Amino acid sequence: MESKTILDYETVALNDEKDAIIIIDQTKLPYDLEMLTLKRQKEIWTAIYLLQVRGAPAIGVTAGFGLYLAAKEIETEDSEEFLKQLLKAKEYLATARPTAVNLFWALDRVFKAANDNKDKKTKEIVEAIYKEAVKIRDEDIWVCKQIGEFGLSLVKPGDGLLTHCNAGQLATVKYGTATAPMYLGHERGYNFHIFADETRPLLQGARLTAYELQEAGMDVTLICDNMSGMVMKNGWVNAVFVGCDRVAANGDTANKIGTSVVATIAKRYNVPFYVCAPTSTIDLATKSGSDIEIEERPSEEVTEMWYKERMAPSGVKVFNPAFDVTDNDLITGIITEYGIARAPYTESLKEIMEKK
Amino acid sequence: MESKTILDYETVALNDEKDAIIIIDQTKLPYDLEMLTLKRQKEIWTAIYLLQVRGAPAIGVTAGFGLYLAAKEIETEDSEEFLKQLLKAKEYLATARPTAVNLFWALDRVFKAANDNKDKKTKEIVEAIYKEAVKIRDEDIWVCKQIGEFGLSLVKPGDGLLTHCNAGQLATVKYGTATAPMYLGHERGYNFHIFADETRPLLQGARLTAYELQEAGMDVTLICDNMSGMVMKNGWVNAVFVGCDRVAANGDTANKIGTSVVATIAKRYNVPFYVCAPTSTIDLATKSGSDIEIEERPSEEVTEMWYKERMAPSGVKVFNPAFDVTDNDLITGIITEYGIARAPYTESLKEIMEKK
Repeated sequence: MESKTILDYETVALNDEKDAIIIIDQTKLPYDLEMLTLKRQKEIWTAIYLLQVRGAPAIGVTAGFGLYLAAKEIETEDSEEFLKQLLKAKEYLATARPTAVNLFWALDRVFKAANDNKDKKTKEIVEAIYKEAVKIRDEDIWVCKQIGEFGLSLVKPGDGLLTHCNAGQLATVKYGTATAPMYLGHERGYNFHIFADETRPLLQGARLTAYELQEAGMDVTLICDNMSGMVMKNGWVNAVFVGCDRVAANGDTANKIGTSVVATIAKRYNVPFYVCAPTSTIDLATKSGSDIEIEERPSEEVTEMWYKERMAPSGVKVFNPAFDVTDNDLITGIITEYGIARAPYTESLKEIMEKK
Repeated sequence: MESKTILDYETVALNDEKDAIIIIDQTKLPYDLEMLTLKRQKEIWTAIYLLQVRGAPAIGVTAGFGLYLAAKEIETEDSEEFLKQLLKAKEYLATARPTAVNLFWALDRVFKAANDNKDKKTKEIVEAIYKEAVKIRDEDIWVCKQIGEFGLSLVKPGDGLLTHCNAGQLATVKYGTATAPMYLGHERGYNFHIFADETRPLLQGARLTAYELQEAGMDVTLICDNMSGMVMKNGWVNAVFVGCDRVAANGDTANKIGTSVVATIAKRYNVPFYVCAPTSTIDLATKSGSDIEIEERPSEEVTEMWYKERMAPSGVKVFNPAFDVTDNDLITGIITEYGIARAPYTESLKEIMEKK
């Protein structure tokens, strides 16, 4: 165990017995590399809610495997009753995080696989669910690699790159989304200089992104979120890559809180700002960013979590949104597995979605 | 002691015996209200360096009293030798923080008082130094109150105000600079809704600003630095008030790291952005922001300080500038004790300085 690093594990995997999901507990990183075994639905729900597994694609894969485990536990042989119980399990898992569209997308997809096979025996329906969940996982790796190739075409060796939060390998099964161009570039000797925003309050940039990129041998510099202005003004950043949790039809993008701040700064200093978005995060049914529900999280994440002692006065009011919406005018391009969408996004995103 | 709050103390004071500076140890707030007694020059230097006392005006007052204590310890009766030793003490204290011009300004002012009296007995020179140091302190209170009045004229009851870092009472002797309009408005029933950026890495907003405003009975909401984008986009902020460490002749302003980010966001959402600047922070000899030396601080402030455990991978590179420069085009007005300077600042700041 000592000699293994984060990169030796898949972020989310089904165990060999196919009766549990194994995840890296991301709340323990970087000081403990601890694997969690999730069997019960409540455990899976909690792992998503507590961000032990996080990142839109990884949440999707977890949800897919999660619904498969739920399906295996349904005891009826009546397929109508089976689907009824499966729907209940699906709706339960969907409540774990309100903003990440991948969660709903993966659950819908797995449920559809079940529904498409509703005339078969329940055992066969379960098998169809398993195949769909594994497909989601395999596609995730392919999607990230594609995003990496498209992203890499936008930068050059020696470039300074900045990223916010963790849309890294730890947010997916492999490569990450925002980090995919970095991993592929690193394999090809690009020698990027990467800046990782620490990303308050949960510090995914410090704990996860700086960690995984350093483990991979890249040149990474950690900064506090409010330092991106100075770093970009100094001319140290040639491109920003961020992940996303949901892209609306007009290109407005929900991602980790603070993403819109980075985008605004990038615009001021003429740094291209790219959103790395698997098409699973694109939701044409959501018209614009104002239609996206933003999850608010407990104030203790700001005032106490991680700290030796409470870092704010007792009883202070806190506003703690988990995401913000970056307006489409701040986005230079949205990089998907089928190509790069550019403004006007209402058209380009529709075209991309037609390639699926 | 239990029943006393932060507002019952002056941030910096000389004790009755006039042989020590008493400060609130700001690194211990908000969980410990601990007073520090500083007698030796090394103690004073360290208190400034470690940010036990911080905020440009409070640093100035501390430096003034500090040089007075140094003067009292000089044993010669030869005034030329006296001034030589005083200069050495002045130069030593000036090295504690490289960016805050108030430090140099207060030291220069006290030294000048000594020099203006160099023909007198050393005992009388010491007395002149004492008077000047006390004058700096008294003026600080007057200056803050004036800034408060000018600032208050720019807002209305019920407004949402946002501030970054702590340019509060704890950064001055009383009222603060950026918080002066808030304190005066609060006294007059303005019912502001105040947002305090936590201000990484040292969390002065969470530990100090949220604390002192809450103690004063104001409605204050703590946010992480990267949430200001969402808060302003939501229309919750009518004006931003920040302090400053140095204003250049063209209006470029050095202040706590992240200030330029807040200013950029404010500009995007058409929120007026005001810098509260005692004229002691205005340095017409500095042409523009690019001439301001920016202090870099230890990486441990980002990766370890305050945290239960190290929050970033071992050995990770960190960029940790203490300040950034906000370009003059992002600043709606610079509020001084003699009035509000507006663009073009090269002219308006010169006019303000002529009023002194």
